[in-house]
Amino acid sequence: MAKRVHNFNPGPATLPLAVLEQARDELVDYRGTGMSILEHSHRGKAYEAVHHETLARLRALLGVPGDYAVLLVQGGAHQQFAMAPMNLLPPGGHAAYVVTGRWGERAIAEARTVGEARLAASTEAGGQYARVARDDEADVDPGAAYLHYTSNETIDGVQYQRVPAAPAGVPLVCDMSSDFLSRPVDVARFGLIYAGAQKNAGPSGVTIVIVKNDLVARARQDLPQVFRYATHAAHDSLYHTAPTFNVYVVCLVLRWLEQKGGLGAIEAESRRKAGAIYEAIDDSPEVFRAPVERESRSRVNVVFRLPTPELEAKFLAGAEAREMVGLRGHRSVGGVRVSLYNALAPESAELLAEYMRAFARSA
Amino acid sequence: MAKRVHNFNPGPATLPLAVLEQARDELVDYRGTGMSILEHSHRGKAYEAVHHETLARLRALLGVPGDYAVLLVQGGAHQQFAMAPMNLLPPGGHAAYVVTGRWGERAIAEARTVGEARLAASTEAGGQYARVARDDEADVDPGAAYLHYTSNETIDGVQYQRVPAAPAGVPLVCDMSSDFLSRPVDVARFGLIYAGAQKNAGPSGVTIVIVKNDLVARARQDLPQVFRYATHAAHDSLYHTAPTFNVYVVCLVLRWLEQKGGLGAIEAESRRKAGAIYEAIDDSPEVFRAPVERESRSRVNVVFRLPTPELEAKFLAGAEAREMVGLRGHRSVGGVRVSLYNALAPESAELLAEYMRAFARSA
Repeated sequence: MAKRVHNFNPGPATLPLAVLEQARDELVDYRGTGMSILEHSHRGKAYEAVHHETLARLRALLGVPGDYAVLLVQGGAHQQFAMAPMNLLPPGGHAAYVVTGRWGERAIAEARTVGEARLAASTEAGGQYARVARDDEADVDPGAAYLHYTSNETIDGVQYQRVPAAPAGVPLVCDMSSDFLSRPVDVARFGLIYAGAQKNAGPSGVTIVIVKNDLVARARQDLPQVFRYATHAAHDSLYHTAPTFNVYVVCLVLRWLEQKGGLGAIEAESRRKAGAIYEAIDDSPEVFRAPVERESRSRVNVVFRLPTPELEAKFLAGAEAREMVGLRGHRSVGGVRVSLYNALAPESAELLAEYMRAFARSA
Repeated sequence: MAKRVHNFNPGPATLPLAVLEQARDELVDYRGTGMSILEHSHRGKAYEAVHHETLARLRALLGVPGDYAVLLVQGGAHQQFAMAPMNLLPPGGHAAYVVTGRWGERAIAEARTVGEARLAASTEAGGQYARVARDDEADVDPGAAYLHYTSNETIDGVQYQRVPAAPAGVPLVCDMSSDFLSRPVDVARFGLIYAGAQKNAGPSGVTIVIVKNDLVARARQDLPQVFRYATHAAHDSLYHTAPTFNVYVVCLVLRWLEQKGGLGAIEAESRRKAGAIYEAIDDSPEVFRAPVERESRSRVNVVFRLPTPELEAKFLAGAEAREMVGLRGHRSVGGVRVSLYNALAPESAELLAEYMRAFARSA
C-alpha cells in the first residue's frame, strides 16, 4: 500500500487515487499495444481515441452547446491571458476587465501588451481582495470587445457564486482555471472559458478552452497560426503535437468524475468540504480570521489567517505532522490556504476541520 | 513481462524502457512523499529539484556556454516558429530562412505572420526535398536579424551533417526538434536552438530552448510576457506552472543518456542504426529507393520508397506482423519512414534491416 498524504496543494494538485493507479498500471504497456501511451503517436488510433473521448466527455459533462468549440491547448491560463485579447480584441477596440484578485491583475496586465484593456471594476482595497464585484459597480462600455473576469481567485480565495451580468452583445470571457469542473456551468452565457487543467481536471501542461464559434469566426486572422483559436478548432486540437499523456490523464479524471455522478454531485461534495472548513473558522474567530466576505468565499480555495506569524507557523507545522500538506498561503499573501479540489477526499477536509478545532481549543 | 513492440514512431516516440519502468514505479507515491509527481506543486521542493536537475543536465550534456539560457517552455516547435520571430525580429527588420523540408516551410510561413521573413534558399524540387542547402546557394543579407534552418527534416528525411555558415553578426537559429540530443552540438555557434521534447528528449508537452543571453537582452519587449524568452529566463522557466510530469520524464531520459555515455556514445550508436538501414536500402536498389541525396541522409528519419503502392503496403503489413510499428511515411509524402531515435534499441534496427533484406529477396 503506497503512502498517501492529505494533499491540499493549490495546483498542480491532488488527483484521484484510482486515476493514478490506472495510469501506473498502463504506463509501460498501454492496453496490450506494446508501448506506453507516452510513446503512441498523436496521429495513431490509440491516442486519437483518448483525445476524442476527452473532448466528447468535456462536452457531455458541461453540456456544451453545439455552437461552441472545445479545445485542448498548451501554455496554461497565462498563455490564455495573451491569446484571448490577441484573438478577440480587434485593432482600435477595447476590452473590459473586472479584477477581483491576483490572477485578474495578471490577466489585464497581459491584455495591455496586446491592446486597450479597461479596468471595469476592481475590488482591491488596501492591497487585498475580499470580495467579487457587484454588477452595478462594473463600468462596462457596451462597445467592449468582451468582458473578462476570474470566476475563482486561487490566491485570494474569492469566488463568484453567480455569473456576472454583461451588457447585451458583450461576450463574457472567464478564467475558470481553479473552479472549472467543480460545479455545473451554463456555458451558453459565455463567449470564452479557459482553464489550466492542473486544479480539478488533471495534470499541468494542458489547457481547456471553450469558445463560441461566432467569436472564433470573427477573431483576428493576422496572428501566428498557433495562437489562433480558429486553427485549433479546425484541427480538433491536433494542429500540432498534443501533450498526449496530459490529455490522457484528463480523460481518466473525466471518467472518474462521471462515476462520481457528474458536476451536480461534485458540487454538493465541494459544498460539504468547504462548509466543514468555514465552520471551523467561524466557530473560533479569536484564532482564525477569514479575510473574504461571506458571499464571496471560495469553495475551492479557503484562505484564513491566524493572529500572529508564530501561530501560523505552529498551525502549519502541526498540520504537516498530521500529513496534511500544501496549506501554506501563496508567497505573495501569506497565511493559510486550503485547496479543496474535486479529488481531495471529504475525509481529508473533515480531518483538517477537526485539527483546526483542536488547535483553537489549545491556542 | 510487458509486451514491447519495435516502435519506429516519428514522435511522440519510443522511450527507454528503464525510464518508463521508473516512472511507473514512482507514479502513485513519488519517493515516499505520499503523492504522485503529478500532484506535487511546481513551487515545492520535490518538483523544483527535478526541474533544476533537468536544466543542469541539459547544460552539462550539451556543454552549454555560460552566456546562454536554457529554458523549458510549452507549445512545441510550432510555438517556437512564432516565438522566435516575435522575440528576435525587430520592427522593420527581416530574417532569413533556409528551407530544406516541410517543417522549414511551416517555420517561414509562421514567421511571415510576424514580420518579414526572406527565403534565403530552398532545396525544393518538384514538390520534394532531397538535400540540405549548400552554404554558397543561401542568399543571406548581412543585415538579417537571424538565419533560420531546420537541422533535421522529420518528414523528408533530410539532415544537416554540419552547421551551416551564416554571415558575421547574423545569429543562427535552429529548429533541432528531431535530432536534438542525438549527437554533440557546438552550442556556441548558435543564437537560438529549440526542440520539442517528443523525439529524443522525452514526451510531448515540453519544449527545450537554448538562447544566447545577448539575444534575450535585445529581444522585443512589447510582447505578452508569456511569449518573451526574457520572462522565462528571468524565472528559471517557473514564471508559470511548468508541465511538471513532462519535465520529470525528460529528467529521467537525461539520466539514462548519461548512463549510455553521453552524446558522443549516442551518436556512434545512431550511426550504426542508420547505417544498417541505409545498407539494406542500397543493397537492393530494385526494391528500395532512398529519395534523399547521400550526404543529406538523415540518421534519425530514414525515408524510402518501394516500386509500387502495393509493394509498400505489403512491406508495411509484413513489418507490422513482426511487431515493427510506426513505419508508414508522413501522410503528406507517403512511402516508408524509419525513425531511429535514441531510445530505439539497435536490435530493433537490425531486425528491420534483416526483414528488408528478406523482403527484397522475395519481392
